[in-house]
Amino acid sequence: MGVFGIIGNEKTNVASSVYYGLYALQHRGQESCGISVNDDGVIHTYKDTGLVNDVFTSQKLESLGQGTMAIGHVRYGTMGTKGRVNAEPLVVNHTKGHLAIATNGRLVNGSVLKQELELKGMIFHTSSDAEIVSYVVIQERLNSVSIEQAVNKAMDKLKGGFCMLLMSPKKIIAVRDEQGFHPLCYGKRENGEYVIASESCALDSVGATFIRDLEPGEILVFSKEGITSIRDHCQKKPEALCVFEYVYTARPDSIISGCSVHAARKKAGAYLSTVKPVEADVVVGVPDSGLDAALGYAEASGIPYGIGLLKNKYIGRTFIAPGQNVREDKVRIKLNPVKETVNGKRVVLVDDSIVRGTTCARIVKLLRNAGATEVHLRSSAPPFVNPCYYGTDIDSKENLIACLHTEDEIAKIVGVDSLAYLNLEDVTKIGASGHCTGYCTACFDGNYPTETPKMIINKYENKLSESEK
Amino acid sequence: MGVFGIIGNEKTNVASSVYYGLYALQHRGQESCGISVNDDGVIHTYKDTGLVNDVFTSQKLESLGQGTMAIGHVRYGTMGTKGRVNAEPLVVNHTKGHLAIATNGRLVNGSVLKQELELKGMIFHTSSDAEIVSYVVIQERLNSVSIEQAVNKAMDKLKGGFCMLLMSPKKIIAVRDEQGFHPLCYGKRENGEYVIASESCALDSVGATFIRDLEPGEILVFSKEGITSIRDHCQKKPEALCVFEYVYTARPDSIISGCSVHAARKKAGAYLSTVKPVEADVVVGVPDSGLDAALGYAEASGIPYGIGLLKNKYIGRTFIAPGQNVREDKVRIKLNPVKETVNGKRVVLVDDSIVRGTTCARIVKLLRNAGATEVHLRSSAPPFVNPCYYGTDIDSKENLIACLHTEDEIAKIVGVDSLAYLNLEDVTKIGASGHCTGYCTACFDGNYPTETPKMIINKYENKLSESEK
Amino acid sequence: MGVFGIIGNEKTNVASSVYYGLYALQHRGQESCGISVNDDGVIHTYKDTGLVNDVFTSQKLESLGQGTMAIGHVRYGTMGTKGRVNAEPLVVNHTKGHLAIATNGRLVNGSVLKQELELKGMIFHTSSDAEIVSYVVIQERLNSVSIEQAVNKAMDKLKGGFCMLLMSPKKIIAVRDEQGFHPLCYGKRENGEYVIASESCALDSVGATFIRDLEPGEILVFSKEGITSIRDHCQKKPEALCVFEYVYTARPDSIISGCSVHAARKKAGAYLSTVKPVEADVVVGVPDSGLDAALGYAEASGIPYGIGLLKNKYIGRTFIAPGQNVREDKVRIKLNPVKETVNGKRVVLVDDSIVRGTTCARIVKLLRNAGATEVHLRSSAPPFVNPCYYGTDIDSKENLIACLHTEDEIAKIVGVDSLAYLNLEDVTKIGASGHCTGYCTACFDGNYPTETPKMIINKYENKLSESEK
Amino acid sequence: MGVFGIIGNEKTNVASSVYYGLYALQHRGQESCGISVNDDGVIHTYKDTGLVNDVFTSQKLESLGQGTMAIGHVRYGTMGTKGRVNAEPLVVNHTKGHLAIATNGRLVNGSVLKQELELKGMIFHTSSDAEIVSYVVIQERLNSVSIEQAVNKAMDKLKGGFCMLLMSPKKIIAVRDEQGFHPLCYGKRENGEYVIASESCALDSVGATFIRDLEPGEILVFSKEGITSIRDHCQKKPEALCVFEYVYTARPDSIISGCSVHAARKKAGAYLSTVKPVEADVVVGVPDSGLDAALGYAEASGIPYGIGLLKNKYIGRTFIAPGQNVREDKVRIKLNPVKETVNGKRVVLVDDSIVRGTTCARIVKLLRNAGATEVHLRSSAPPFVNPCYYGTDIDSKENLIACLHTEDEIAKIVGVDSLAYLNLEDVTKIGASGHCTGYCTACFDGNYPTETPKMIINKYENKLSESEK
Repeated sequence: MGVFGIIGNEKTNVASSVYYGLYALQHRGQESCGISVNDDGVIHTYKDTGLVNDVFTSQKLESLGQGTMAIGHVRYGTMGTKGRVNAEPLVVNHTKGHLAIATNGRLVNGSVLKQELELKGMIFHTSSDAEIVSYVVIQERLNSVSIEQAVNKAMDKLKGGFCMLLMSPKKIIAVRDEQGFHPLCYGKRENGEYVIASESCALDSVGATFIRDLEPGEILVFSKEGITSIRDHCQKKPEALCVFEYVYTARPDSIISGCSVHAARKKAGAYLSTVKPVEADVVVGVPDSGLDAALGYAEASGIPYGIGLLKNKYIGRTFIAPGQNVREDKVRIKLNPVKETVNGKRVVLVDDSIVRGTTCARIVKLLRNAGATEVHLRSSAPPFVNPCYYGTDIDSKENLIACLHTEDEIAKIVGVDSLAYLNLEDVTKIGASGHCTGYCTACFDGNYPTETPKMIINKYENKLSESEK
Repeated sequence: MGVFGIIGNEKTNVASSVYYGLYALQHRGQESCGISVNDDGVIHTYKDTGLVNDVFTSQKLESLGQGTMAIGHVRYGTMGTKGRVNAEPLVVNHTKGHLAIATNGRLVNGSVLKQELELKGMIFHTSSDAEIVSYVVIQERLNSVSIEQAVNKAMDKLKGGFCMLLMSPKKIIAVRDEQGFHPLCYGKRENGEYVIASESCALDSVGATFIRDLEPGEILVFSKEGITSIRDHCQKKPEALCVFEYVYTARPDSIISGCSVHAARKKAGAYLSTVKPVEADVVVGVPDSGLDAALGYAEASGIPYGIGLLKNKYIGRTFIAPGQNVREDKVRIKLNPVKETVNGKRVVLVDDSIVRGTTCARIVKLLRNAGATEVHLRSSAPPFVNPCYYGTDIDSKENLIACLHTEDEIAKIVGVDSLAYLNLEDVTKIGASGHCTGYCTACFDGNYPTETPKMIINKYENKLSESEK
Repeated sequence: MGVFGIIGNEKTNVASSVYYGLYALQHRGQESCGISVNDDGVIHTYKDTGLVNDVFTSQKLESLGQGTMAIGHVRYGTMGTKGRVNAEPLVVNHTKGHLAIATNGRLVNGSVLKQELELKGMIFHTSSDAEIVSYVVIQERLNSVSIEQAVNKAMDKLKGGFCMLLMSPKKIIAVRDEQGFHPLCYGKRENGEYVIASESCALDSVGATFIRDLEPGEILVFSKEGITSIRDHCQKKPEALCVFEYVYTARPDSIISGCSVHAARKKAGAYLSTVKPVEADVVVGVPDSGLDAALGYAEASGIPYGIGLLKNKYIGRTFIAPGQNVREDKVRIKLNPVKETVNGKRVVLVDDSIVRGTTCARIVKLLRNAGATEVHLRSSAPPFVNPCYYGTDIDSKENLIACLHTEDEIAKIVGVDSLAYLNLEDVTKIGASGHCTGYCTACFDGNYPTETPKMIINKYENKLSESEK
Repeated sequence: MGVFGIIGNEKTNVASSVYYGLYALQHRGQESCGISVNDDGVIHTYKDTGLVNDVFTSQKLESLGQGTMAIGHVRYGTMGTKGRVNAEPLVVNHTKGHLAIATNGRLVNGSVLKQELELKGMIFHTSSDAEIVSYVVIQERLNSVSIEQAVNKAMDKLKGGFCMLLMSPKKIIAVRDEQGFHPLCYGKRENGEYVIASESCALDSVGATFIRDLEPGEILVFSKEGITSIRDHCQKKPEALCVFEYVYTARPDSIISGCSVHAARKKAGAYLSTVKPVEADVVVGVPDSGLDAALGYAEASGIPYGIGLLKNKYIGRTFIAPGQNVREDKVRIKLNPVKETVNGKRVVLVDDSIVRGTTCARIVKLLRNAGATEVHLRSSAPPFVNPCYYGTDIDSKENLIACLHTEDEIAKIVGVDSLAYLNLEDVTKIGASGHCTGYCTACFDGNYPTETPKMIINKYENKLSESEK
């Protein structure tokens, strides 16, 4: 998921700026999207399922009007939180006015908070964490002098990995979770507007100059009066940046915690070239996400980099695959080998990860049909073996090939001559040029930086049954 | 423009195969597209303006039904031939039945042929060459024993650079123009269906194995009885393959006249590295079409290849750019520099061509803002200075920057430290590994392999005024 | 606004039944519509702005699946309650499960209830009364043994004119307000399914046999176990059926409180013929809503009934009126005089009401241009002079011509030879053949059957300021 | 089918005027529609399948731009002439410029003309008569001094019942067939624009004053210079106005050949009341087309006129009828009995015609369920027993209930107590107040005013085989 916000002193076409920002963040979520524009305290919102490009026709954008601030959101669909009803920003009315909220991440204590609220007669329209957050914040708002004070208090109750933007009639409040699971940064445009975004590439997309990342736990309040930082929740817990942001989630042209994602991926490729080194003629990346690591692998190994797979640039969301063998066809339509590059060659194929293995297998077959004599598959991430509770969309355990098979078995299934993953100890080094002090690698090694949802529910139920005694 | 055809003995979902084929050929034309399915002599057609993906919903594809053969078309829009009315395949009814026709290219004597036909009372529904061709063919059909004989006779009258597929109730007839301006090849699927396409990548997309290119002037007749080659127009004139197919038009994974397009572009990059050699730190290609040449440049020059520009993969046809500075924004949204790659570096920027210069200038500015200390622009094509009469979409002379300014002026306008083009003598060598024996390079040097439309019209008018005397 | 519900023992295509029902109720609201299907406790909902026909494509209907029960809603748009966000059914999740709610009417104490809830930290997603109702019900649910008990308790707090359908995982609960402002009835289909609807015409549309109207204040609980009636709120207050239902809102083929709407309108026409009787040649009704009264007028007066205005049956929601004089054109496109009927005739023109007068004036002009020698306008309703607080969509006072001008002035403005309204004492007699015991005629005479919203807010604010002392 | 044209001296929003005109003519064809705007000789056209309202969004209308003249068309779909490809206006280019053509009716010698043209090498894009006509006209144009002369000559070759509008770069030419099968009239707007339309109601819709009908065989030429009438084909053959225009096709507010359609239908109802007179309590018309005749029946018989069936005014083209019993449901959704009117009554039910009988049977059942004690069905047209060759859309013989069953059988099938049709001798008297001198009643009595298509084909084939001897 991705969030984007903008705030200035003059009314401008902020909706269009958010549109550009969400466009740049589209890779963080393709299921639904939305924009809320604040026009002197009145909030106009449009959101729906679909890509930014499809949801926001120019007519829809115009209908949002102008304003001094706006926030937007892109969401990927997970079981139970899909559909138009869960699209964000979530806009609610409360005793002090309107509040729009856009979130990136996941609460680990969401279901317990929800149960507590429902027992007070609260009703829920959605299955999103955003609605839980809004209730917690609004409850605190009743006894707070400002929305930012309410948010600061709410932070004590909200556990997990989440960033968020809250837009009140007069302010935008940006919040990064205490352990900094997900990135959030801000910058400034020449016209004085401040821009907050999940990734720096979205600042670039609207011509804003990067200022800095929010610190883990930091609350930044943007208003006409300027920017205020609330740091009561900073440096209370060890940092736990999702390392998968470097490996897969973020865009290569973003800079996270001071390290270029492109550089991190090249470094991953370089480290990877030292695992099971192999004699080969060409290094081929799977477009688009494997290209950076492939280049890093090539440079480190001395094996030439080649353009061995061509991606059809017209492939879009609405691509239909009529007839039989839909999945097969989809790969073939999307990717075609460049015979010239692979024919008669020993190919090192670099991808960012191996999830189900089916797409990999198809690609390997394409390369072999195009004349590759050997195919050595290299994954620039360690194997996925654990679920993520912090908002990263990882397939369920039953589908993860690494949970079901040994490395050798996978190599056979996928049809490669050799298979290697990035070492677990290397994955936390790829962002070393930046200033991040700790990573969440739970999906690879099971070391969860927080209590898990299950632990929290168990505690709550124990407490309930205690009190009933 | 691109054509695609398929023919087999059993009724299958041929529409879906053509759909895949057109998808792979989409880069050859984005203005309109269409598919005609032949179900026992009855031809069902759907066509409209738009991308293949947008025009053909699954409902529309299904409505075309099954058949034993089908042809399809993608068209780019040029002045005067845009709109739904000009979309192909063109389907006409005549005394011997139905005929569907899809063309790639341009007649040079089209306007004279049209005038002659109109003077006989013929009416025209479109402004496309396809309708002229169909009249010429149908007129010959009246005195021919077969449609292929009619096509063979028509070839004497049709001058210019054009390929075409004609589908009669029982046959598909594939025709490549006498001088082979445009590519056309065919292959076979495992189920026995023959597939004809403008580029080999479209054969790949439906799992067909490439058999061979049609020879310049060759007429191939596909029917239940098999394939017949009519070669009356072969080897009558020197070959004149559009060299721009290698440079820009075709997809890198296609093989044309025996030479891989990717290889040709790498070679172009290699040749280019010898023109005005420069000391630099990184070679960056403009995605997507400059990447192959950039890699060739890097390998030949020894300067490292870098991923310096990231293309937003969600950019689609319907991208709207609200607000001011639309053109500027469009480049910024589409491309973002990878700072890591270019910051503090001397960059060689490789693009396939420089047409108006405006996009180039924007990209150069992006690179400089990202920290590039020098930018050396290299075009893997010579400068465009002449119009194309054979169906390639080149901007009008008033817009071509190379017609308006000297190389030095252009370098200043675009804002680069140096500028170089591929040498004219090198451009015809890039496909040398294939079997093509001659190229059309008219857009670069003005050497038109045929009479120009103007010459033909003048002759005709002189003849008319003679006969009036 | 209109509501429709259906419940049976077997899973059937209930969505399609609701679709038919809403189609029949479309005249009660054209701004938005929605359907919620209950499939074993899981509620699937689709709703949007637009007509039933446009919102529910067959694909959308299918996506709702099958179920044992469903409810639906049509809404007209009033200031502040428009848009997709306010479309109903509203579906909320609470501690005991899901609840879908569809309402017809308006709370008079809505804003006070909302304020009280907000002060407890409740958040509101919509500006509809349905959300207020759902909170009140859910709060009661916490301390009730069943949803129907909660609804029964909630009725003590909800003041105003409103009917509603609530769908819990296992029940549909139909509620008619204490004074019976709005109609609600139920019936049964041959397959045993019960059907509840705002008007009997919707029962007809799904082949259900009318059983009876709900009594004012009655709560009917439909479940697998059958039907239970809760009558704690019955006969506590005098009946106050909106007389405008007979005059305008309801469909002529509906039967409300035992009286046919068509009959009531004919009777209105008959009464009207006694007000300012006039010598004339033909009685013409304005299609569609003036036809019944015109026929009644003709029969009572002995003046022949004529078809004098033809309505274009293709006029739809999406009708665009490009060019100048849009409003003028819209009337001309929609209605055309039948010259044969009015040429050279003295015409009595019967319409159901005169709101702004502009449409009337256009029609009168059309008739005169078609040769009518005199036009006598008769309104089958008394003049509107007061706002409605119970959910009927009456224009604001500044637009009501009767608030701005005398009868004589209006006659001049509209351009008629004479003008007469139905007498206030007659309007409550038009439904006399039924069993209704009292009417709300506030829009005509200002006698509001309840406290007005303003009174309630004043009281609340006084109480608040008292308690603050 | 219906045609509409407009021509003036100034550029105006003619597209919007044609839009209004086609809206008024929508009842003459719902399958496809189109508009061609002439902007200084350049013709912009948009056409597609669908209702006027759906095809022409305001965007599409705007895209047609302004012009001094325009023509438009609505078409109903018959076997073989459906689809976008057959939508009119047909626009063709020929040696003298552009020509747009819109037709109403059918050639009887179309297939012979087509065969002759094809033997000259002509190609056909459509299966419409319009294309045949355009060829015949353009062929004549080669040896004519003007387009109107060409049309005049073409009239000698074109046989059948057809009206048409032809728009050349500078003129609109309106043509009515020699025997006047179909109506065509013209009028003038206050701004000086002339308007030509199939029915006078379309003149009303754009505020034009009716001038006169074209005479059978008349050619009217509209240009900047004014109007010229070419009458070479007038009064050569007896008039044969399709009597079904009065009975069903035309709109009641139109005036055809001097007789109001509404008056003709009332007269049909009056005549009908004398056939099998019956004692009854109420006369009910089937909306919309049976209402006029019902009123005529009531007035003539003295039996009261009643509103006994209510038509849902929201029923549109896109109405979907999911679930079982689709046809049944469609009638129930569309029409609902007004119980008040029919309960306990003996009902005379008047419809304009009985085609398949299925809809009638459903309506009768609805009335009986609503309490009608007797239902006497009266058709204001004689029974259909013959195909129409002049462009009226009559069901095929296998579906016409009158071809399959006796009157008594039909009464039983439809479920009525008695059944009567308008007498054949009366049907030609219903338009008597106008100036028409002869009617085509072939669908009722088989007296075709021209040779039939079969006769013409036989002759042609005999001639061909003669010449081959």
